[in-house]
Formats: sequence, C-alpha cells, structure tokens
Amino acid sequence: RLQELMEPFHAADIADLLEQVDDDDRRALIALMGDEFDGDILSELAEGVREDVIAALAPQVLSQAVLELESDDVVDLIEDLEEPTQETILEILEASDRVAVEQALSLPEYSAGRLMQREVVMAPEHWSVGEAIDYMRAHDDLPEQFYHIVLVDPRLRPVGQTTLGKIMSSRREVKLADIVEESFRTFRVDEEEGDVAYAFNQYHLISAPVTDGEGRLVGVITIDDAMIVLQEENEEDIRRLAGIGVESLNDRTLTIVRQRFPWLFVNLITAILASLVIAQFEETIGAIVALAVLMPIVASMGGNAGTQSLTVAVRSLATRDLTGSNAIRVLRREIVAGLVNGCVFAILMGIIGFLWFGTPMLGAVIATAMVINLVIAGLAGILIPLTLDKVGVDPALASGVFVTTVTDVMGFFVFLGLAGIFLI
Amino acid sequence: RLQELMEPFHAADIADLLEQVDDDDRRALIALMGDEFDGDILSELAEGVREDVIAALAPQVLSQAVLELESDDVVDLIEDLEEPTQETILEILEASDRVAVEQALSLPEYSAGRLMQREVVMAPEHWSVGEAIDYMRAHDDLPEQFYHIVLVDPRLRPVGQTTLGKIMSSRREVKLADIVEESFRTFRVDEEEGDVAYAFNQYHLISAPVTDGEGRLVGVITIDDAMIVLQEENEEDIRRLAGIGVESLNDRTLTIVRQRFPWLFVNLITAILASLVIAQFEETIGAIVALAVLMPIVASMGGNAGTQSLTVAVRSLATRDLTGSNAIRVLRREIVAGLVNGCVFAILMGIIGFLWFGTPMLGAVIATAMVINLVIAGLAGILIPLTLDKVGVDPALASGVFVTTVTDVMGFFVFLGLAGIFLI
Ligand SMILES: [Mg+2]
Ligand SMILES: [Mg+2]
Ligand SMILES: [Mg+2]
Ligand SMILES: [Mg+2]
Ligand SMILES: [Mg+2]
Ligand SMILES: [Mg+2]
Ligand SMILES: [Mg+2]
Ligand SMILES: [Mg+2]
Ligand SMILES: [Mg+2]
Ligand SMILES: [Mg+2]
Ligand SMILES: [Mg+2]
Ligand SMILES: [Mg+2]
Ligand SMILES: [Mg+2]
Repeated sequence: RLQELMEPFHAADIADLLEQVDDDDRRALIALMGDEFDGDILSELAEGVREDVIAALAPQVLSQAVLELESDDVVDLIEDLEEPTQETILEILEASDRVAVEQALSLPEYSAGRLMQREVVMAPEHWSVGEAIDYMRAHDDLPEQFYHIVLVDPRLRPVGQTTLGKIMSSRREVKLADIVEESFRTFRVDEEEGDVAYAFNQYHLISAPVTDGEGRLVGVITIDDAMIVLQEENEEDIRRLAGIGVESLNDRTLTIVRQRFPWLFVNLITAILASLVIAQFEETIGAIVALAVLMPIVASMGGNAGTQSLTVAVRSLATRDLTGSNAIRVLRREIVAGLVNGCVFAILMGIIGFLWFGTPMLGAVIATAMVINLVIAGLAGILIPLTLDKVGVDPALASGVFVTTVTDVMGFFVFLGLAGIFLI
Repeated sequence: RLQELMEPFHAADIADLLEQVDDDDRRALIALMGDEFDGDILSELAEGVREDVIAALAPQVLSQAVLELESDDVVDLIEDLEEPTQETILEILEASDRVAVEQALSLPEYSAGRLMQREVVMAPEHWSVGEAIDYMRAHDDLPEQFYHIVLVDPRLRPVGQTTLGKIMSSRREVKLADIVEESFRTFRVDEEEGDVAYAFNQYHLISAPVTDGEGRLVGVITIDDAMIVLQEENEEDIRRLAGIGVESLNDRTLTIVRQRFPWLFVNLITAILASLVIAQFEETIGAIVALAVLMPIVASMGGNAGTQSLTVAVRSLATRDLTGSNAIRVLRREIVAGLVNGCVFAILMGIIGFLWFGTPMLGAVIATAMVINLVIAGLAGILIPLTLDKVGVDPALASGVFVTTVTDVMGFFVFLGLAGIFLI
C-alpha cells in the first residue's frame, strides 16, 4: 500500500519527506519501501540524512539503488560521505564504473571535473548529419541525458557542438560543422564549479564540454547540475552574510551549536570593543544619562545602513557587476546616499531628541552623529567588501562583522565624543 | 576596429560592459557599435540601463535589433519598460509577433505565461519516431531552442514528452509514446514563476509544457529561463533580508536613497522602541554607569543569534524544507541551541563582567540576561518567520526587523531589569 502511495512521487520529494520526518519514522518508511527504494532518492538526500539512510538500507537494497545511478550521480552521492561508507558503495560498483568514480574523486573538490558526466556523444568534425544519426541509432548505450553532439578534431579536442534540434531539422547530407552553435565554450576539468555555474547562467548554456590538461574532451556538464551549483553558491552567500555555516535543518543540535559558536564569539569580541569605547565616556554618561538612552539609536542606524551597502557590494561582486571600472562611481553613490539619508534622519532624530529631553544641544549632537555615522556606513559598506575581495577573502563571509564593528564603534564614539565636548 | 574588438564577446558581456561604464562612455560605445548592435544585448541589459540604451539607439538600429529576437525575449525585454518605449518597440514587430507579445503581456506578471516561449514542437501521441523526424525535416521554422517533442492528444492537451536524444537513438518504427520521459510535469499559464523555478530545480527539468485554462498546450518553458528566475528569487531574498529593495548598481543615487529610506525609517522606530525600554531604567543606569557600558553586548549577541536562526528559517521556507512536519522539531532544536550557546557565553561574559568591574553580582546579572536573550533569539528567529509565512507576508521581507526588535527590547529589559533588582 505504501509503495502504491509513493509511486507517483518524484525521488526528490521522497527525499524531502525522509529529511523532514524524525529518525524513527524515517527508518519505518525505509523498511516499508523495501526493495522499491529508488537510487535517485539517495542522490537527492541532504548530506546530514544521507549517511543515516544508507546505514538503514538492507545491503541488497543499497546495491540495487547504487547500481541504478549514472557515474556523475554516484560521485555526487559519495563525495561527502565518511570513508567507510564511501568504501561500501565503491565496492558495489562494477569495475569500470568504480574506476570512473575514483578518477572523478581524485580531481579537486568543487571542480568542473567533479560536476561533469563522462558519458559524452561526440563525432569527428567532418561528419554529416546522416552519419551522426546512423551512429546514434547503432548505439544503445547513449547517455540518459544529452542535448548536443560535440565535434572533435583527430586529437579528440572539442571544436564545436551541434544541438540535437538542429540535427533533426537538417537534411542527412548537411555537414555537422555547418550547423554548430554560434556561442561555444569549454571548461577545463580543474576549473572552479562556481565559475562554471556563472558561465552557464551568464551565457545561457545548456551543456558544455570539459577538457583535460591536453585539451582533450573528457566529459560534459549539463545545465541541471550547474543550476544546483548556482543555487548552492547563493545559499552559501546568504548563510555567510547571516553568520552561519553550511548547516541544514537536518543537523543535530550539537552540530548547529558548534557551527554558530564561532560567529557569536567574533560578535562578542566586537561588541566588547564597542563597549570599551563607551567605557571611555563613563563620566559623560554619568552626568547625562539620556546619552545611554539615545546612543543605541545612532549605532543601530549605522549598522542597518552599513548592512544595506555591504549587501549590495557583496552581491554585485558575486554576480561580477562590481568591477574596477565602476567601483569609484558606486562608492561615490553610497557616500551621497549616506549623506542624504543621514541628513533626513538627522533632522528627524534631532527633533525627537530635543522634544524628548528638552535640550536643543542634545538634538544637535545626535543629528550630527547620525549624519557622520551613515556616511561612514556607506563608505565601510563598499570599501570593506572590495578590500576583502582583493585580498582573496570571501566578502560574504567577513564583511558583516567588520562593517557593523565600524558603525558601532564610530556611532558610540562620535555621539558620546560630541556630547562630551558640547554638553558637559 | 571596435567592431572587430567586440566580435568575440557574448551579448551578455557587452551588456555588462555597457552597465559598468558611465553615461558618456555608454553613448560613445553605442555610437561606435553602429548597426552591428546585437538584439540580444538589449535582452541582457539590466532594467535601469535598458531604457537609456534604447533611447540612444538610432531608430533603424533598434528595429533591426528587436526583429532579431524571439517572442519570449521581446516580452522579457519590454515588460518593465515605460509605456511609450513599449509602444515604440511593439510597432517595430511584425503583426503576428506583435499579437503574440501583446497576448503574453496580458497575462499576469511573474507568471509561467510570461516565461514561456510560444514556439513548441508537438506531435500527435500515436506518431512514430520516423514520422516525427520527417515532420521536423520538412519544417524550417522550428524554434531556435528545443529539447523535447511534446505529445498531445486530439484536443491538443499534452500527454507526455520525448527527448530528442531518445528519438535519435531509437529506430524509425518505435512509437513516441513508448519512449516518453518517466517524469513529466506541465505548468498552467497563470502559475507563479517562482513555483516554476522551484519545480525545475527540484525535478531537474530541462523543458516543460505550459497549458491554458482548458489544459491545451500553449508553450514551453526552458530551463535557462527558469534558472534566471531562480537566481532572481534568491537575489530578492538576500536583498530583503538586508533591508534593501530591488535596487541595482545602475540606479541613480536618488533612487537608492528612496529605496533604502523606508527600511531605515522602520529601523529608527524599532531603535526608539528599544530606547524607551532603556529610558525606564535611567535611575538604575545613573547609579551604576557600568550598565550602560555592558548593555549593548547583551542586545548585540541576541540580535546576532536571532539573525542566524531567522536566516535558517527564511531559507528553509524558501526551499520548502521547513514544513508543518518538522517545525516543532526545528523550534526545539533552536531553543536548545540558544540555551547551550547562551550558557557558554553567559559563563564567558559573566567572568569578563566580574573582572572588568569587580562586582560578582554584575557578572551574574549579565550572564543570566545572556542566556535568556539567546533563548528568546532562537524562539523569535523561528516563530516570527513561520508566522509571517502563515499570514502570507514574505518572511524574508519582515523577519529581520521583528526579530532584532524582540532581541533588543528583551536584551535591554532583562539586563537592566535584573540589574535593578539585584544590584541596587
Ligand atoms: Mg530536497
Ligand atoms: Mg542526473
Ligand atoms: Mg557535490
Ligand atoms: Mg563553492
Ligand atoms: Mg548529471
Ligand atoms: Mg561565493
Ligand atoms: Mg549581466
Ligand atoms: Mg532565449
Ligand atoms: Mg522578466
Ligand atoms: Mg528543416
Ligand atoms: Mg517573485
Ligand atoms: Mg527562452
Ligand atoms: Mg521569495
């Protein structure tokens, strides 16, 4: 009954279900699925849960599931598993597949080579449409997925590719070389997967050949796999901007405690730094307690404005829209924006400060501090990500900490400093 | 010379270049490109710059550029333009294309219908491979891009689809119906583009048919267009989480000032709210100024922990990994994580507070406040996005403001409140 119930569901949805239920229900579901357990479910599972599910599968069910998969999916399946589990799965594979998978695993992680499938349909560059069709008809081991025929020279170097659609609509005697796609790009096996995903998105590629050190065709990457990488890169940026690691909903509590600790710890250090600034003005605050009431407002507005600017900068760097040719212009724009919004909020906050505490000078001080801190926020929000990027640190990872430290420290310093001069 | 220089560049890269240079250089570049200006450049341009470029193009260059585009690209090109520019471009189109574009524009924005191309290759469900190939050979107006033949019943309703690869590798007499793809999904013309992108990513679709109200085939969506939507949805979440709108690097300074103002204004309100809490404890702070020095630490740690939790929640809602079946478990996990990290930082901060100011009780107060605020952060970080999602507000848009208000207010209240009780 469960098997019938599960039948219409896609492996990706069953994987989601297995991720969302608790450990007992998960084991129960797996037991109920029995040997109907589809290999694709394993590929679709989040890493945290994958290990558990593999452990829960009966050996013959696991074998059958793994043997169903294409080699690139096996690579993706096992690359993040623990050594012993990897071994178990490698032993299931047929010798030829095992070699292919081990070869892929010997390539650097997050490289084009890890992402590609080795199953490629290629043709000599001088072939005609008819020759290509006859070749394909004669081979029953064509890959599950392919959208292009890659043309290669005698040394197996890709020289172009033709879509199946074009082949279909051309007469048999047309040369493949005459109907190649206009825009053609290849990737080296050791290229970063992030760069591959960028290129797929930027150039609307559907599939692209991968070459080895000698420029020979060794595989193809298809857009569905590039799309997954693009999504992962975005996810990474979002999480890094928020100060969390690669955690997922399926991680154990202790894992997320450990993941989040370092970020909170760094934040503690920067918060103490800001407190040290406040401590320099203890006497001033002792004299005018209103300052303690108002000072978080200046810091908070700076932090928010800084986060706005840095997010624009970090994302523009990620999408490669922020470059040397427009950095100065963007910086100028941020400074002016900080100045304009700073002035508006200065007037607003100046009035509120005056009405609240009855001291016009207090209003003037908070207004001035607000303008200065919002301009600093705009500056820091652009310069810090740009600098981090220059020195090779991911700006998504560290910009937030630096920018909010700057806006906190400067916010407290400018506000309390001005108050010390003009109000005491 | 410039034309030769630009020749090897993809339209997407030329568009990026036009975005990054300043207004004068942009006009100069356009003038230099002359009638070599490629229509695809227009499609690739960011919205802010598109209007400017169109205005800078000579009428006959614009006509030629627009006529090169497929109908779905024209839709994408003009949907965000101002009325008069839309008109100019619509008038360039041939009558049949104009009708197609106008029809698409009459569909709701961000719908599957806006995303699809109308050019589809379809075949009656009873056709064989040979019939399909003959049909394709006989037609020279096949779409630029297609990866599947869609099988339709006599009432033009899609019943399955076959990849070109499968057709290529099958013998002529094989029935198309016998080699359809296992997993088959169609979209209604009014479906949300975000849902379409989700499905493409979740089910690794390459192209999928779109149907009208009667279930008849009206177009197909291809993965490259779905990938762009997926990227936009991510971008939207990142920007909303950071309190910025849809601004781009190409917006004028005044546009970004206006975009960012509302968020900063909301933040001002919440900052004042927190200040009102502090104001309740003016006397306590007046008595012990050390409290003013330490209080931002409690608030800041709560804000950071809350942001971590809410980001996990917002993203998990976006990827549909957080559902009714695991919400309780996730919430419990966040509370325990808040408790554990809270205790660790409580001990740390308790010791620092004691060493710094020499008052053991002050250490105890900040430690207790820290634990309480981190647990509240975990709770708020999950409950607030879940609630917003339930009531139909985008959790990415508003969670941040609510969560940090809670952690600020509670941080100040608990710390100063405990101090008032135990230190005075
Ligand atoms: Mg999933
Ligand atoms: Mg696959
Ligand atoms: Mg992987
Ligand atoms: Mg990466
Ligand atoms: Mg694949
Ligand atoms: Mg990155
Ligand atoms: Mg671009
Ligand atoms: Mg297109
Ligand atoms: Mg659009
Ligand atoms: Mg033809
Ligand atoms: Mg949307
Ligand atoms: Mg398209
Ligand atoms: Mg969204």
